[in-house]
Amino acid sequence: MGTKEYFPGIGKIKFEGAESDNPLSFKFYDPEKIIGKKKMKDHLRFAVAYWHSFCADGTDPFGAATHLHPWVADAKNPIEVAEHRMDAAFEFFSKLGVEFYAFHDRDMAPEGETPVESEKILQTFVARAKDKQQETGVKLLWGTANLFTHPRFMNGAATNPEFGVVALAANQVKAAIDATIELGGLGYTFWGGREGYMSILNTDLKREKEHLARFLISARDYARKQGFKGAFYIEPKPCEPTKHQYDRDVETVAGFLHMYGLDQDFKVNIEANHAELAGHDFVHELETAAALGIFGSVDANRGEPRNGWDTDQFPHSYYETALAMYTVLKVGGFTTGGLNFDAKIRRNSTDPADLFIGHIGGMDAFAAGLEIAQRLIEKAVFSSFIKERYSSFDSGDGARFEKGDLSFEVLASLGTEYGTIGIRSAKQELLENLFNQQLLRL
Amino acid sequence: MGTKEYFPGIGKIKFEGAESDNPLSFKFYDPEKIIGKKKMKDHLRFAVAYWHSFCADGTDPFGAATHLHPWVADAKNPIEVAEHRMDAAFEFFSKLGVEFYAFHDRDMAPEGETPVESEKILQTFVARAKDKQQETGVKLLWGTANLFTHPRFMNGAATNPEFGVVALAANQVKAAIDATIELGGLGYTFWGGREGYMSILNTDLKREKEHLARFLISARDYARKQGFKGAFYIEPKPCEPTKHQYDRDVETVAGFLHMYGLDQDFKVNIEANHAELAGHDFVHELETAAALGIFGSVDANRGEPRNGWDTDQFPHSYYETALAMYTVLKVGGFTTGGLNFDAKIRRNSTDPADLFIGHIGGMDAFAAGLEIAQRLIEKAVFSSFIKERYSSFDSGDGARFEKGDLSFEVLASLGTEYGTIGIRSAKQELLENLFNQQLLRL
Amino acid sequence: MGTKEYFPGIGKIKFEGAESDNPLSFKFYDPEKIIGKKKMKDHLRFAVAYWHSFCADGTDPFGAATHLHPWVADAKNPIEVAEHRMDAAFEFFSKLGVEFYAFHDRDMAPEGETPVESEKILQTFVARAKDKQQETGVKLLWGTANLFTHPRFMNGAATNPEFGVVALAANQVKAAIDATIELGGLGYTFWGGREGYMSILNTDLKREKEHLARFLISARDYARKQGFKGAFYIEPKPCEPTKHQYDRDVETVAGFLHMYGLDQDFKVNIEANHAELAGHDFVHELETAAALGIFGSVDANRGEPRNGWDTDQFPHSYYETALAMYTVLKVGGFTTGGLNFDAKIRRNSTDPADLFIGHIGGMDAFAAGLEIAQRLIEKAVFSSFIKERYSSFDSGDGARFEKGDLSFEVLASLGTEYGTIGIRSAKQELLENLFNQQLLRL
Amino acid sequence: MGTKEYFPGIGKIKFEGAESDNPLSFKFYDPEKIIGKKKMKDHLRFAVAYWHSFCADGTDPFGAATHLHPWVADAKNPIEVAEHRMDAAFEFFSKLGVEFYAFHDRDMAPEGETPVESEKILQTFVARAKDKQQETGVKLLWGTANLFTHPRFMNGAATNPEFGVVALAANQVKAAIDATIELGGLGYTFWGGREGYMSILNTDLKREKEHLARFLISARDYARKQGFKGAFYIEPKPCEPTKHQYDRDVETVAGFLHMYGLDQDFKVNIEANHAELAGHDFVHELETAAALGIFGSVDANRGEPRNGWDTDQFPHSYYETALAMYTVLKVGGFTTGGLNFDAKIRRNSTDPADLFIGHIGGMDAFAAGLEIAQRLIEKAVFSSFIKERYSSFDSGDGARFEKGDLSFEVLASLGTEYGTIGIRSAKQELLENLFNQQLLRL
Repeated sequence: MGTKEYFPGIGKIKFEGAESDNPLSFKFYDPEKIIGKKKMKDHLRFAVAYWHSFCADGTDPFGAATHLHPWVADAKNPIEVAEHRMDAAFEFFSKLGVEFYAFHDRDMAPEGETPVESEKILQTFVARAKDKQQETGVKLLWGTANLFTHPRFMNGAATNPEFGVVALAANQVKAAIDATIELGGLGYTFWGGREGYMSILNTDLKREKEHLARFLISARDYARKQGFKGAFYIEPKPCEPTKHQYDRDVETVAGFLHMYGLDQDFKVNIEANHAELAGHDFVHELETAAALGIFGSVDANRGEPRNGWDTDQFPHSYYETALAMYTVLKVGGFTTGGLNFDAKIRRNSTDPADLFIGHIGGMDAFAAGLEIAQRLIEKAVFSSFIKERYSSFDSGDGARFEKGDLSFEVLASLGTEYGTIGIRSAKQELLENLFNQQLLRL
Repeated sequence: MGTKEYFPGIGKIKFEGAESDNPLSFKFYDPEKIIGKKKMKDHLRFAVAYWHSFCADGTDPFGAATHLHPWVADAKNPIEVAEHRMDAAFEFFSKLGVEFYAFHDRDMAPEGETPVESEKILQTFVARAKDKQQETGVKLLWGTANLFTHPRFMNGAATNPEFGVVALAANQVKAAIDATIELGGLGYTFWGGREGYMSILNTDLKREKEHLARFLISARDYARKQGFKGAFYIEPKPCEPTKHQYDRDVETVAGFLHMYGLDQDFKVNIEANHAELAGHDFVHELETAAALGIFGSVDANRGEPRNGWDTDQFPHSYYETALAMYTVLKVGGFTTGGLNFDAKIRRNSTDPADLFIGHIGGMDAFAAGLEIAQRLIEKAVFSSFIKERYSSFDSGDGARFEKGDLSFEVLASLGTEYGTIGIRSAKQELLENLFNQQLLRL
Repeated sequence: MGTKEYFPGIGKIKFEGAESDNPLSFKFYDPEKIIGKKKMKDHLRFAVAYWHSFCADGTDPFGAATHLHPWVADAKNPIEVAEHRMDAAFEFFSKLGVEFYAFHDRDMAPEGETPVESEKILQTFVARAKDKQQETGVKLLWGTANLFTHPRFMNGAATNPEFGVVALAANQVKAAIDATIELGGLGYTFWGGREGYMSILNTDLKREKEHLARFLISARDYARKQGFKGAFYIEPKPCEPTKHQYDRDVETVAGFLHMYGLDQDFKVNIEANHAELAGHDFVHELETAAALGIFGSVDANRGEPRNGWDTDQFPHSYYETALAMYTVLKVGGFTTGGLNFDAKIRRNSTDPADLFIGHIGGMDAFAAGLEIAQRLIEKAVFSSFIKERYSSFDSGDGARFEKGDLSFEVLASLGTEYGTIGIRSAKQELLENLFNQQLLRL
Repeated sequence: MGTKEYFPGIGKIKFEGAESDNPLSFKFYDPEKIIGKKKMKDHLRFAVAYWHSFCADGTDPFGAATHLHPWVADAKNPIEVAEHRMDAAFEFFSKLGVEFYAFHDRDMAPEGETPVESEKILQTFVARAKDKQQETGVKLLWGTANLFTHPRFMNGAATNPEFGVVALAANQVKAAIDATIELGGLGYTFWGGREGYMSILNTDLKREKEHLARFLISARDYARKQGFKGAFYIEPKPCEPTKHQYDRDVETVAGFLHMYGLDQDFKVNIEANHAELAGHDFVHELETAAALGIFGSVDANRGEPRNGWDTDQFPHSYYETALAMYTVLKVGGFTTGGLNFDAKIRRNSTDPADLFIGHIGGMDAFAAGLEIAQRLIEKAVFSSFIKERYSSFDSGDGARFEKGDLSFEVLASLGTEYGTIGIRSAKQELLENLFNQQLLRL
């Protein structure tokens, strides 16, 4: 903790169980509890997002700041704000009991007058954060660079029509990669905030996407040369602030990575709210990434299904958290990734405790989801049905087909009788009922 | 024309110009008019869809047939219906003055009791269609197999969990490929009607997608071996009748084709309404396909922006047709592809003439769109701006970056001064105004 | 039960509790269990929909029937089909253990050659149904007329541009009202299947809506004169099969009812899937109806959030069922209404048992939802917060404002100091956490 | 013009016709041209929105200001900024050649430390604006109060759970009404920015809506007492910044106004982008308002169909502007209302001229739309079809039905023969073709 306590009156958040009436306690998240073969905390690997929790202030497109942070109040300049903010952040991480955080360069360190100065300021704050990490044991899940707030990025960063902006973006990313390495970050994320278009009438999308690939290839090469062993993440999002963002969804990103030979180094950081904006279930994106071998990390939040923008609310539905953890368990758990709360409390949640309450809700929702998922796996609720359903491909001609050992003529020649083949119930309602049953047996 | 006239009182549709009051005339489509270096008809390559125009009957999920076709009326059995239908279809093609049509196997020929019988029936009708083609000069744009109507495909065709269904699908596709070759079809289309899932709870999406790839690879090999030189098309669609269809949009398909080495033989057949369902502008899908080198053909229709299903209405907006033809002109025009009207008249459009009126509207909309597009190109309305906008990549460091000749360190080192770089107006409103100006100068 | 058993091997569905592995048992629906002051079954008042469960056959816009009902198999003509179907339906109602059903005239009785004949056929089947009701104790929740399937209604029924169709619709509705009265129906529902427009270009929407009002007024007068004491329901839906349906959502219907003086007799029958299509949460529609005093009955189902059409799936999410029952409890429970499963099993759910499984899932989901809702009420989880939140209107100037005793000048004069007024946390995350906590304490 | 010229190098915008290459000229808007019986400018009554054009600075949820206005640059405090801003605004109005503007209190005058001080500041700026209006001849279309930007309104204004906020809102609205009267405003608008809810869990929607009604009733009474003769407008919007806004769409507002007896004084100010967010065509909202007798004014803009938030782009599509003006012509033209550009140039449109170009595009789009609409009316393209289509209600039983002279029994008795009644083509494709034909005949 820093010299000043920013969340006075709130101590370490503890597990108190489902009957507790204390809003500042965990009802389901019991970090040391063993689920399967690991502790709950090692399954879930929660991270707090520096930007939403410590930089955002409740401003929305129609209104001014409502979150008047104490770390801003007494500070005399942006540097002091950033110092206080870091104290507050690590105090929060510790009290909440998460092991990870994630940040953009500009969240932690204000921009200077020149690129050189900006990098120096960043380095100062990285040194400070390194100390904080050591003191608290909190680790860096991933770092990234903010390539969207400054007006110079209004037409994109790596995909900007002006080469000079691309160079500035590289300058900034290089410093952010260095910072991530210095802080022992397990990953480095690219979220293409403005890598897309507002209007196709003024855009050369082929050239822009090639620039993006070129940028990523050389950034990766640089980081690897510096000894970075972590994962690179692309974070799919279909739009906002752009009309169309190139990294639309997991499949789009997978195709792009494959075409440019990036699929060995890059994985996806999947956000629930972005999935929704792209017209997908969260679990669809997770399963797709798993199937394509690029599952990396999760930005744990939720959208508001009735609104068409990125509301970044805290996770809530056990249906979503259970299916998400089900996929995570199926792929063998997180390696470099984790559950990063890319979520913010509502603009009108103005009590200091609300920041804790939001995170607690998200953590409890995922803890319960993990338990439900574990149960689904142990009881083979879905998997036994699926195994049987595709069993005709496990041997005989079906297996030969899968291996590519059947020519089309031979395959066609096997389809000689219509009969009643194909009329086999897919049992959707049954599986949904079983899911509902397990959910409430927790 | 067959022995019976199915559209009595309607003769050959003629170009009469924008002042004509005759609803059964073209206002803008003047087939022989030279636009650039080609005739209008050679730019547009219109095709009629056999299914919507001759098989559908106005049924919708809430109501019974309203289109009581004369080709069904007197027929004594399905074979006779199919014969009359073909007469009516070719009469229609000729009177409308289109050069192409497209069909599913089951549109043309009813299914038999066994696969062998089904193929024989198909062959009979193919022979008949071949004669009709010769008589009328109408050509086959592409053929395909209906792998979604029969209950056996309720859980998918190539992605069905039962191997037996996959084999039956292959049997049917093989026959449809043979038919397409026999009829001189310029392309063969795969639309994955039920290749997707209704519920992820009962689905192994990895395995299903691999089966799809395996199926396409061997089908391609077969067709090539039979001497088919045309294009294979995948038709992206995000959903309906499934919850999620694997061929969601152009980027998804492009990635899939690339991963399985299919990108040399397969292109996309882009449908406007499917683009809309996927959350894309029609032109976005066209431009994306062009950028990725897989632009093939177009299913020309439109959706209803307020409804979330595939309404398959005839094209209408000059904004959409102009931008579509702009992309077509930029890629050098159609080669194997064309503008296939995957569109149907409304259920309550019950006059015999309505089928003509719907097609005339679509053809006029695209003819005007072509003229607007040609004007946009001749005047370099967008292209001159775009060229200038990206010119920093045409030489110097920008060009070196594009070629991959700059390491990330060097690139970053070029970003040394912030200045006002990046603050260059993207002139979206100006370009929109210029588009509007050209649209009305027709 | 009729002479033939249509669901052999399936007996009366029983409550077996959450640990049961029997898919044909209730896990949470325990009909006689007391919740608050009433039995579970008296809170929930489940009804089965005749149309989805006994008339629909799995057809969708892309495929043929997959549900080959035994009640169709041996029948020699439509009358026999309808007889067998009724036997099957009442067998199902009894085995499932629901107390109510709902039907359209045409579900139960086929259409004749003339209106007079149609009415006679209907009367025959109504007599038969009356006997069945007496035998089984199953009651009619509501009746309605199918004014959308026949082609004559393709341009609407009460809003048809042809007066003759309006008269035919009245003829049919009159017979359906008589049937409902004869069967002791507690309500009569108007769902305006095609009361809306496909294109505004051919529509006089003012005149159509006035015709609709005129129709409803005179239908109500007729029914009341016949002694009908039940509720009239309007069922809001925004679109499908139309582009725009006049009864879009609860607020639209409320305004319409109010303008035409129908708000004393008519209430709304709210469907979850229709709410979703209109861009509303299910609970929003329920709460709005409650606030406006027109809450009537519920069509219990769910949509698929990723698809834009009416998927009519069985209810599943405890979040939705709990909030729905919370509103139902707050308004004092159903009076004439109930939970009617306007839901169908998926097209690829082809086992005979699937129809039971779908309903069981829906009933269990609502039973659990009821228990969660009761708990939310008993613990005043939301209500205590809300009461306090608005307490400044309970006395003093706030109360005077509510009563309309403050002029605008006086009201304005009370706003003299900015201070920090208004900056009070709305505690959204806290309330969401409490909801999640109660949900899992079941 | 003020002492400083804020748009140097740009003179009065002139009509130069469709062939002009000058981006700073009108191509279709020829203010003095007679269309029907009125001048173009008197049909269109364009207004500029003070907020988007002079207060907004390009900030979006992901980025900082890009529009660095010269009227902010040299100012020493908020009062000076506001003074310069007003000079710039009236310079712009004059150069653009619009006759109207619209404003919020806070656009024009900064907020003071107390309500009393705020009102005094507003009065000073109103006096200044009055002078400017006199100098330039520009008039006030409508005024309004900003009840959404300040944090005190984070939970609503008239619907705030704290009575004190309601009083402050009244204080502010009273001053804004006084200002509107002083400036000769033709209307006063209520846009319920935060009148709705973020979460139904913490909301008493019945009480909130009653408060809203109470507020509007007393505000109206006040304004009328002060001699205000203009129109009151409600501006429907379904959401954003809230999850749900009470004034969702025209029908919702109409019902609300009717229930509270406000429908004689209040009309709707319809915004195209808000219509889209509510799931409606712009023309649907206009036609609905016309049918319900509450058509008032228009916020002329457009949304981005692929994005789910309020993009507020300038109008573009002739389809939308033509149909909008078609409704305006049908209702006899604007009385108090006009076409207010509630539109902003894109964040990356950073040239000073872009503000002109955006408005020019919107004005040209509506000017062309007006001409197309006039042509549609003169040629009775739609109206002749519609008149004939409903003609069975013009006499005989149909007319009696419309008048309410037929009981349901009599009506039903007229429906005695099915025949082919109802099977009359609705000719949607024909009408769409005719629209397209007229559009290009301009």
